[in-house]
Formats: sequence, structure tokens, C-alpha cells
Amino acid sequence: MAVYTEVSDEELEAFLAQYSLGGAVSCKGIAEGVENSNFLLVTESGPYILTLYEKRVRPEDLPFFLALMEHLAAKGLACPLPVHGRDGKALRQLCDRPAAIFTFLEGMWPRRVLSRHCAPLGEALATLHLAGADFGLTRANTLSVAGWHDWSRRLFERCRAGADEVYPGLTALIEDELGSLEKTWPTGLPVGVIHGDLFPDNVFFRGEALSGLIDFYFACTDFLAYDLAICLNAWCFEAAGDFNATKARALFAGYQRRRPLAAAELAALPVLARGAAMRFLLTRLHDWLNRPEGALVTPKNPIEYLRKLRFHQSARGLGSYCLDSPE
Amino acid sequence: MAVYTEVSDEELEAFLAQYSLGGAVSCKGIAEGVENSNFLLVTESGPYILTLYEKRVRPEDLPFFLALMEHLAAKGLACPLPVHGRDGKALRQLCDRPAAIFTFLEGMWPRRVLSRHCAPLGEALATLHLAGADFGLTRANTLSVAGWHDWSRRLFERCRAGADEVYPGLTALIEDELGSLEKTWPTGLPVGVIHGDLFPDNVFFRGEALSGLIDFYFACTDFLAYDLAICLNAWCFEAAGDFNATKARALFAGYQRRRPLAAAELAALPVLARGAAMRFLLTRLHDWLNRPEGALVTPKNPIEYLRKLRFHQSARGLGSYCLDSPE
Repeated sequence: MAVYTEVSDEELEAFLAQYSLGGAVSCKGIAEGVENSNFLLVTESGPYILTLYEKRVRPEDLPFFLALMEHLAAKGLACPLPVHGRDGKALRQLCDRPAAIFTFLEGMWPRRVLSRHCAPLGEALATLHLAGADFGLTRANTLSVAGWHDWSRRLFERCRAGADEVYPGLTALIEDELGSLEKTWPTGLPVGVIHGDLFPDNVFFRGEALSGLIDFYFACTDFLAYDLAICLNAWCFEAAGDFNATKARALFAGYQRRRPLAAAELAALPVLARGAAMRFLLTRLHDWLNRPEGALVTPKNPIEYLRKLRFHQSARGLGSYCLDSPE
Repeated sequence: MAVYTEVSDEELEAFLAQYSLGGAVSCKGIAEGVENSNFLLVTESGPYILTLYEKRVRPEDLPFFLALMEHLAAKGLACPLPVHGRDGKALRQLCDRPAAIFTFLEGMWPRRVLSRHCAPLGEALATLHLAGADFGLTRANTLSVAGWHDWSRRLFERCRAGADEVYPGLTALIEDELGSLEKTWPTGLPVGVIHGDLFPDNVFFRGEALSGLIDFYFACTDFLAYDLAICLNAWCFEAAGDFNATKARALFAGYQRRRPLAAAELAALPVLARGAAMRFLLTRLHDWLNRPEGALVTPKNPIEYLRKLRFHQSARGLGSYCLDSPE
């Protein structure tokens, strides 16, 4: 839920004058996107999404994100397409922030994940990976284990004092796990564009069919199988923390129908899943401990990702994920 | 900004099956309406607003609100129209809450109030009052000065301890003003249906033209001129607290083009405006002092209404509002 910036009528009018979309019919702040301000903007030519980029997105990364969406859409992946203004530009300023208009994507994200969502999810993720293969730009994963020292240690230092209050023993657990991940993180796996944040609220469905993916603002260049590990964490655990093998099998089967995984990718899954769990544990812990007074966004509880991390720590290879036998 | 309840796909599908609107194409929580959860619901037949009534609205009041919107819309006032299901009912349950679907109203509320907004506002308010004249239902104003003892004293008792911390001397000031209002509150003014909360975010414009009014959940039966006093407070003061006479004149001129005010209504304006300022000062003070930890809604600062109250306290009749001469 996020509307950080209010756009005045005059500013919106001047902004829209740079496009060929007609005048504004309605513009409502929507509860989508934690990092940006998003509006469902209806103009005389139809519905669009207006996004204002707030401070958590680095302006220098925006050309990568927008070009990626254009590239993926051109390859047939359903995702929001940046709308170009009369001057040919998709990215401009509104209320002193970078801003862009996107095509409107039909569908709703599943409030309750069912196993039937997971095979289409896997297929869409593989489609994204294949479509990204000839994308010309790269962007380092600022939250990767490979770049661990650049961010996780720094983030952790800002959480260290409070971590044990969130969960007794959490400081030591993170310390140990960071060391272990740095030693065991794989090398040489297939690399490409990953979504990096493909949680249920970023995947739209219409009925049974997946209708599109949104929110590419964590997209970067990293191991493709790491993206699958992020999805495994985000889609295949129950609220109580239980691992749902039916969902995991459906996710992997869907993915492999489009892009079969190499043996090395499958073998690396447990450590990739640990790394993915640690990434979200750390960022959620940081946001939890540093939530501003009166914040509009309630931070997500980091403990959910501690439970997932522990599941992966105790995994004994693919068998623990029920993925060593065919679907 | 408010989305208190998440509606699952299955619940929405079952809910929509009771209407003839087709299936859901998209459903996004919107940052509108502080008291309820609101969604911009697009179905195969177009856009609608889906409202779930949260605990601050009394379920027994809903038939009044919905019937009022139907009555006003039938009289030509642009406002959301409740959509009836196949069973003829507009009000039903969703996620254990009363819920209704409304027609979508085009337009945007003015983020920055200009004097050109105020005459159309006045006209629309008078239109509402005239259209409500033959509405068959009544609802007592639970937040009126007439019913002061029922709510203001009780609310004040819950704020008394904290009021002086918000502003030194506020406790005594409220105490005195409550006593004064109870003694001087007018009687015998024209009574009818009032909106009761016609702030800028409840009034939509398309370009220069007012396109509709929303949020009738404080509507009740009270002095018509009290509604105008609420608008005077909400629309005719600058952010710094200054009274904007140009806006006030435009508001009153617009109103009187449709419904000329009686001399007694004009004479009562200063005390009505004091009462209206006190009503919002008290509810904002209460919400400010009782805001829950981690609330999604940032309460509005009560001090804005203290400033308005002081302006009205120092008023010497209509002249202080620059309303004693024609526009």
C-alpha cells in the first residue's frame, strides 16, 4: 500500500499534455507497489498506471527497468509496457520525481496461493528468463550473495542491536548463516535477467490463467535458478511455515516445461533457497527495526523468513523438496 | 488511504455471481475513504467501486446512506449509485462485512483548492439540499451541537488528559467553547438532509466542472446552513490558517444561486462555523490521541481546526466573512 506523493490537477494536466492519451478522466492512488507511488489513471483513451519513483529506487537504474519491460513485452511476455510521450520519451519528471505511464494489465494477484497458480507461475518465470536472454543491458544484483559484503553485512550492522529482540538468538544465527553462504554460494550457473521479487502480489491471474507480471524494480542480472528459489520461498510455504510439496512440484514442472534446469542448477537449489531466504530475512528485519513513526506501510514480519531459512538449513538435497522424482 | 480488508479471488467471484456485471477483470485497493475499504473493481461491463464497510460505520445506518444516494441520483445529483444484484438488493455481505458495489464516478478531487472550485461546490451543495427535501428517511446527526452531550462531552473526556500536550491550554479552551456553543446554538433554522463531510476529497471535478460528490457516510438530518459552515471551514482557509474571502464569497454565491439563504441562516453563520470547527477539532483530537500503533491512516492534525475555531470566535458577524456585501 503506497501513495507517498499527491499529484495536483495542474501537474497532472501538464504531465499528460506530453502524451497523446487525451485528458485525465480519473486518477486514484492504489495500494500496489511498496517502493513507489502508483495511480490508476483513466484518460480519454483508457486505463493506465502512473508510477512516481520514490527514493528507494535509484534513478540511474530506471532506464534498465523500463528497457527490460519493453524488451520482455516485445517478446510476448505479458507485463506493463512504458508509454512513450510525444517526444519519444517514456521517463520524465512529475512532482520532482522520475515518473512514467504504463499500459494497464488486467487480472488480480492471488490473495490465497493455490497449487493451480504454481505451474503457470513456473512457466511465466521460464518465459521471462528465455525472453531476457538477448536483452542488451545488465544490472548487478545489489542484494545478491555474490555481492554479500556490499550490502548484507552493512544492513546487518544496522540490525545487529535489535535482532535478538525480534527473535532470541537471531544475531548469532544470521552471523553463522552469512559465513556459511559466503563459503558455499555456487559459481558457474547459467546467468541472465531475473525478476528478483516475484511474490504473489506481482503476478496477475484472470481465472485460471496467468495474465501478467508486474514490478520489475528488483530485476537484475544473476543466476536464473536463484529467481526460482525466490519463488519457491514466496509461493510454496503455508502461513504456518509448512513446506507445500505440491506447489513446489507444480512450480518446477511448469518452469521445466519451458526451460529444463541443468543438473548443477538443481543441485544448487538448497543453497540458493537459503540465500534467497536470507536476503528477505535481512531486508525485512531492517525495515522492521527501522520502521518510521506513523508509516503508511506496515513492514512485513521477518520471522516468516527465519522459518523458511531454517527449513532450507535442515534440507538434505533435493529429496527434502520432493523434487527428485518427476511430477 | 484505506484498505483494511483483503478480498480473496474466491470471495470476490462468489460475490460478483450475485450481480449481472460479468466477471472481474481487475480489482485494486484504492486510497480513498478513511472509514471503509474501497476497491476500483473493473468487471466485464466496466469500472465500479466496491466498498466494504468497516467497524466505524454502524450497519443500521447503511440503508439510510444507500437510499439517500439513490434518491439524490434520481434527482439528478451526480453521486455514486448503488448497484442492485439479481435479487434486487444493493447491500450484502463480503468477508464478514456489509458491502456494496457503486457506479464509477469520473473526475478527480482538487489536491489544491482554487477559488474557481468554490462556486460549483456551493451550487452542488444547494442542489443536494433541494434534492433531499422530499427524501423520506431521517437520521439524527450523531455529531451535532444539538446532540452535543451525547458525543462531544464523552469524546472530550477521552481526550482531556492529552489535549494540553497537543496544544497548551487546549483543555480549557474546549471546555469554554463547549459551554458557549451549547448556550448559543441556534434553533428553528431550515432542516433537511446534509452531507456532513463535504471536504475537497469528496468532491470530483473534470476540468472546471464539478462532476460529482462522494462519501455520504456522515449524511444526516440537520440545519442545512450547518453543511455550508462545514464547507466554509474545509474549503475557504489557506494552509497557514488564513481566511480566503474570495473562496467564501464564491461558495456562498454559488449556493444562493440555487437556494437563497434566509436572514436567520446568514445571521447564524458565525456560531454554525464555530460548531463545525469544534466538531472536527474534537474528532481529530480524539483520533490523534488514540491513533493505533502502526496505523495505515495518519490522523489529521487537530490544530488546523483550532486555528479555524479561533477565527470564528473572533468574528463580529457576517462582516468578518466579507459576506455582508454582494459578490
